[in-house]
Amino acid sequence: MKKIRVGILGATGMVGQQFVSLLQDHPWFEITALAASEKSAGKPYVEAVQWVQSEPLPEAVADLPVREARPGLPCEVVFSGLDASAAESIERAFADAGYAVISNARNYRMHPKVPLLVPEVNPNHIELIRRQQEGHPKRGFIVTNPNCSTTGLVLGVLPLWRRFGIRRMLVTTLQAVSGAGFPGLPAMQMLGNVLPHIRGEAEKIQTEPRKLFGSLEGDRVRAAEIQIGAQCNRVPVLNGHLISVSLELRQQATLDAVRETLRQFVSPLAEWNLPSAPPQPVRFVEDPFAPQPARDLMADGGMTVTVGQLAPCPVLDYRLVILVHNTIRGAAGGAILNAEWLHVNGYL
Amino acid sequence: MKKIRVGILGATGMVGQQFVSLLQDHPWFEITALAASEKSAGKPYVEAVQWVQSEPLPEAVADLPVREARPGLPCEVVFSGLDASAAESIERAFADAGYAVISNARNYRMHPKVPLLVPEVNPNHIELIRRQQEGHPKRGFIVTNPNCSTTGLVLGVLPLWRRFGIRRMLVTTLQAVSGAGFPGLPAMQMLGNVLPHIRGEAEKIQTEPRKLFGSLEGDRVRAAEIQIGAQCNRVPVLNGHLISVSLELRQQATLDAVRETLRQFVSPLAEWNLPSAPPQPVRFVEDPFAPQPARDLMADGGMTVTVGQLAPCPVLDYRLVILVHNTIRGAAGGAILNAEWLHVNGYL
Amino acid sequence: MKKIRVGILGATGMVGQQFVSLLQDHPWFEITALAASEKSAGKPYVEAVQWVQSEPLPEAVADLPVREARPGLPCEVVFSGLDASAAESIERAFADAGYAVISNARNYRMHPKVPLLVPEVNPNHIELIRRQQEGHPKRGFIVTNPNCSTTGLVLGVLPLWRRFGIRRMLVTTLQAVSGAGFPGLPAMQMLGNVLPHIRGEAEKIQTEPRKLFGSLEGDRVRAAEIQIGAQCNRVPVLNGHLISVSLELRQQATLDAVRETLRQFVSPLAEWNLPSAPPQPVRFVEDPFAPQPARDLMADGGMTVTVGQLAPCPVLDYRLVILVHNTIRGAAGGAILNAEWLHVNGYL
Amino acid sequence: MKKIRVGILGATGMVGQQFVSLLQDHPWFEITALAASEKSAGKPYVEAVQWVQSEPLPEAVADLPVREARPGLPCEVVFSGLDASAAESIERAFADAGYAVISNARNYRMHPKVPLLVPEVNPNHIELIRRQQEGHPKRGFIVTNPNCSTTGLVLGVLPLWRRFGIRRMLVTTLQAVSGAGFPGLPAMQMLGNVLPHIRGEAEKIQTEPRKLFGSLEGDRVRAAEIQIGAQCNRVPVLNGHLISVSLELRQQATLDAVRETLRQFVSPLAEWNLPSAPPQPVRFVEDPFAPQPARDLMADGGMTVTVGQLAPCPVLDYRLVILVHNTIRGAAGGAILNAEWLHVNGYL
Repeated sequence: MKKIRVGILGATGMVGQQFVSLLQDHPWFEITALAASEKSAGKPYVEAVQWVQSEPLPEAVADLPVREARPGLPCEVVFSGLDASAAESIERAFADAGYAVISNARNYRMHPKVPLLVPEVNPNHIELIRRQQEGHPKRGFIVTNPNCSTTGLVLGVLPLWRRFGIRRMLVTTLQAVSGAGFPGLPAMQMLGNVLPHIRGEAEKIQTEPRKLFGSLEGDRVRAAEIQIGAQCNRVPVLNGHLISVSLELRQQATLDAVRETLRQFVSPLAEWNLPSAPPQPVRFVEDPFAPQPARDLMADGGMTVTVGQLAPCPVLDYRLVILVHNTIRGAAGGAILNAEWLHVNGYL
Repeated sequence: MKKIRVGILGATGMVGQQFVSLLQDHPWFEITALAASEKSAGKPYVEAVQWVQSEPLPEAVADLPVREARPGLPCEVVFSGLDASAAESIERAFADAGYAVISNARNYRMHPKVPLLVPEVNPNHIELIRRQQEGHPKRGFIVTNPNCSTTGLVLGVLPLWRRFGIRRMLVTTLQAVSGAGFPGLPAMQMLGNVLPHIRGEAEKIQTEPRKLFGSLEGDRVRAAEIQIGAQCNRVPVLNGHLISVSLELRQQATLDAVRETLRQFVSPLAEWNLPSAPPQPVRFVEDPFAPQPARDLMADGGMTVTVGQLAPCPVLDYRLVILVHNTIRGAAGGAILNAEWLHVNGYL
Repeated sequence: MKKIRVGILGATGMVGQQFVSLLQDHPWFEITALAASEKSAGKPYVEAVQWVQSEPLPEAVADLPVREARPGLPCEVVFSGLDASAAESIERAFADAGYAVISNARNYRMHPKVPLLVPEVNPNHIELIRRQQEGHPKRGFIVTNPNCSTTGLVLGVLPLWRRFGIRRMLVTTLQAVSGAGFPGLPAMQMLGNVLPHIRGEAEKIQTEPRKLFGSLEGDRVRAAEIQIGAQCNRVPVLNGHLISVSLELRQQATLDAVRETLRQFVSPLAEWNLPSAPPQPVRFVEDPFAPQPARDLMADGGMTVTVGQLAPCPVLDYRLVILVHNTIRGAAGGAILNAEWLHVNGYL
Repeated sequence: MKKIRVGILGATGMVGQQFVSLLQDHPWFEITALAASEKSAGKPYVEAVQWVQSEPLPEAVADLPVREARPGLPCEVVFSGLDASAAESIERAFADAGYAVISNARNYRMHPKVPLLVPEVNPNHIELIRRQQEGHPKRGFIVTNPNCSTTGLVLGVLPLWRRFGIRRMLVTTLQAVSGAGFPGLPAMQMLGNVLPHIRGEAEKIQTEPRKLFGSLEGDRVRAAEIQIGAQCNRVPVLNGHLISVSLELRQQATLDAVRETLRQFVSPLAEWNLPSAPPQPVRFVEDPFAPQPARDLMADGGMTVTVGQLAPCPVLDYRLVILVHNTIRGAAGGAILNAEWLHVNGYL
């Protein structure tokens, strides 16, 4: 089988590097283009990048020339790890030029024609793509994945959402520093400290799930009726966001029923054999001290969220804690899974 | 003025050391007795203790002999930093022998005759002491301060409780490692990690405020009607618990009214000039990244809680974040303030 | 090929767990016995152990019963991760009973009949085993690996030792907390702090290399003439010891010659194809900020040491910095490599 | 007594903030001018600065207008916390305009007419100032303090230098992140990691002590004959550099003699009663785990260095470990002490 040629926009940044790491040896995709800012363009990747992943830079891409981020790249699909400041115009340009743009940036997430996609959650939202393609002979499009915390949240509660419905959720996050990119936060602020605010984050967590859990009606997504309140903290952890949730179900359920629903959940994508889709996207644990970033983060290569601390809540119905790998499932890995889902559905 | 002679039970432990630190140069109290376990008894304090405070061991107590923790100590008041396992019988013995026992241990907090005291919150609960003294000619008694997180929580929301009433609170804590004592948690578990559970902590946070906010009716405290749900995390921070709160008021209030209520709150103890009572026990801040353990912890010597991140909550009414110094206001400092309040009310 | 049955002594401890992790799927060895203290004996391993590795407990051993650590285990070889307090008598008992004891404990390292072995450094020292076997019909024996820092040090300078000789070395270590075992060091001491002393460590670093670099003369090892001074620090890093070295060569050498000697060094074990032996046990790097625990630790699965910061020294001849994975190459992984070397030499 | 009016150049930076903190309530100096880059000029200090000190911004300077860093400031003395990139021309301009420039920047440290000053070490080097003033009617000048690690090193070994002489020193540093300024190092690089290199640092440590220990001969400093080799590490500690030293004395000395020399050292400045001069600038400790940043850093307000870990060295003569507060004694505090020394000598 011939691999699909993919390019990476923002290839020298943190998310771009994660794309490079996760796409090496991918069975379906092959990196054929790396693009970054003008000042990197022209250099071999190994010279343009300040590599900050824990595994070494893959040799296959070390000598790939870095190109400018504009249409003309030798590939059909582009993964975008661009900053929000650059993503808006560049992603639009690639879509207009006929590329499939699989973006991790926030810019188009809430656009009514753009799927905000977690394939286990809202697989059919990819039909929105047709609205983007209407009247465009080149048939390019943009698909986005949510904010890293949103991804963890919607996946972690997905079994309960499906079975019982959820009316309200109160969320407090403990987020890792890698979520702020590189260089990101100063060591002087984070050593032995917590920052009780992350700019724009609570708003995303309060908004994006309504689209993700929304129903596709005709050619638009109708937002789900769910109230979410969030407060976000940055903690001195390298990778792995913890999300503490208290939720109110639509339909009453016993603690046992909630526990079994979480425990028995299997991936709705199981039959598709997507390379990056974990068989159990929600891993339910009962160890009294789980989930922990240091112990549970790499389950299924970082693509599974771990849920623990299930308990009745004296205010709403139940509490639980979700752990998500913010740079894998919550960013590059989530985008790659999106591309896989698009591929088996004939969009790439 | 002659100083009141005080002893410290559990003087070699973490809380005991904090008592020693905070009581040096106290204008009303003078340490005249240090007591610890049998294996320490007989040694000078400097040899018995593994001192882990950041300031040096006060010279005035370095050579005090450590005694066994049983009645007969040369003092009128004892501060107890005993572990819960030892506190129950020892504190009882001291009270029976006529000592005023100012305890930080959890054992008697919920006992109907024992005040669970934060003087700014429930100053009149000290009248319960009379019930302990009834029929006891020696007139000893026990007074306790709450769990460190509870103290931060009730102080931080006190202005809102008084003005508007609070019906429900959802709480998520980010607690420092010093709260687990010494040696406490292994470095291998805490470096770059979060533990999403603290044994027994959520239960205390859910229960103790009901007594603290309760009303004294005749000779008993009637628990306040307030629902609290809590989930507790240990984070790699040395000192300072952050408490993320979402709350529902009894009486509707605008964001402006809530802000002004927090900002203008002054200590109900102001007129008493207690040495350890801060003029503003609640410090309201509007910096978008406050409160932080690294920046805000030592306000008023660690006796003030800092409140920030005030925002409307889409689920309950408002959110805010409280920072409390867990080993000062939340432990030894809180107990010392209790003793000061008892003293000006004639109980010592 | 039938696998050799191996047991693990001290299987529930930190080093024991590392043995379990590294031996799963080993091509030559199969875990058939797990032994620990009396209080664990009788339980399935999964219940007896507090698993603190980052990867999950291997299923193949989860239900193995934990046995008492005394001869009679169903295996031919035992790996010992015992504490020094227990190792002396237990290891002796196993050797007397005919087992090959591959020990990570310090007790027998300097014993004149016991090889202190790093196969790349002193492969022929295994001949000492014959002295242990003399007159013992059961032919059991003990082989030890050095202290974790010593292992890093002797491997890192091995190319220079071989080519130019080394007369003197001054060593300062920055050691990770995992080296102190579990629970090991309190978080309260290590968060944002350095401890400038590790009990007994400097002595080991100053002594063990003399035996490792020593020459086998007849049936004894003649200690190498090399002077070593060491000062050891514990730093808030999870895994990975950094060793800062200044050294004086016996034979003068240019910086270029030193660099090339380090760069071109290949494993003297290369032809043997030992499963755990890295092709380049010394990885020489010239990045100005290498080696770092966070970036370079897992080279060759943690069995390679990384050497960087090569520079002339104004006092002795040259400086360099070595990074060693303390719990893999410096402990369990080193012991397993020792067993592999013994096996291809017919000792198992 | 009328206070001397002082200005701070680079007042919004890390070192500038430290100057502001340490100079509030100074008995001799009063801040009357704050200067920073053009983009800050014109704003009140409280708005121009991102305050990162742990104590709050002093109210007395909050509303001082920030000015541009050029002569014309309303003060006689300027403390310079400027970056090296800006310091060269600006400091020169102030000196030419007649100001006393007390600089923490590296630019003029090795200039033959500029004192590189630690008053306990080389008090008479201030006579170099005359060479700067020769032929300049305005009589301005520049005085510098050394690099933070150099300051710790020369102070820590000063008692031994004076009594026995030192021929050679091998130094390995473990330096705190605050030494890199703000924002400085990314949290992603420092959490649980060590960087084994600090640009330009080893060179300063190897060079500056030769001038500091040099003798004033006529109108120049003759560099001391001492060989120093250094390797520098950045560790995840907020404040406090540890300096591990092995040294060779010129004159033989027993361990007891070395210990007593360190223990009995008193400040050569004692009789002057300088506000920032500690009575014992070298605090010798024998606790087996001292000195530690978390325990020993704030001795004498951060102006004293702590020396411990004294032991014979198998390679050179003795080893010891020095702890210095890098932003106080090693930067702003050191500069203020320099100004005090200049003042009592009539230079201000």
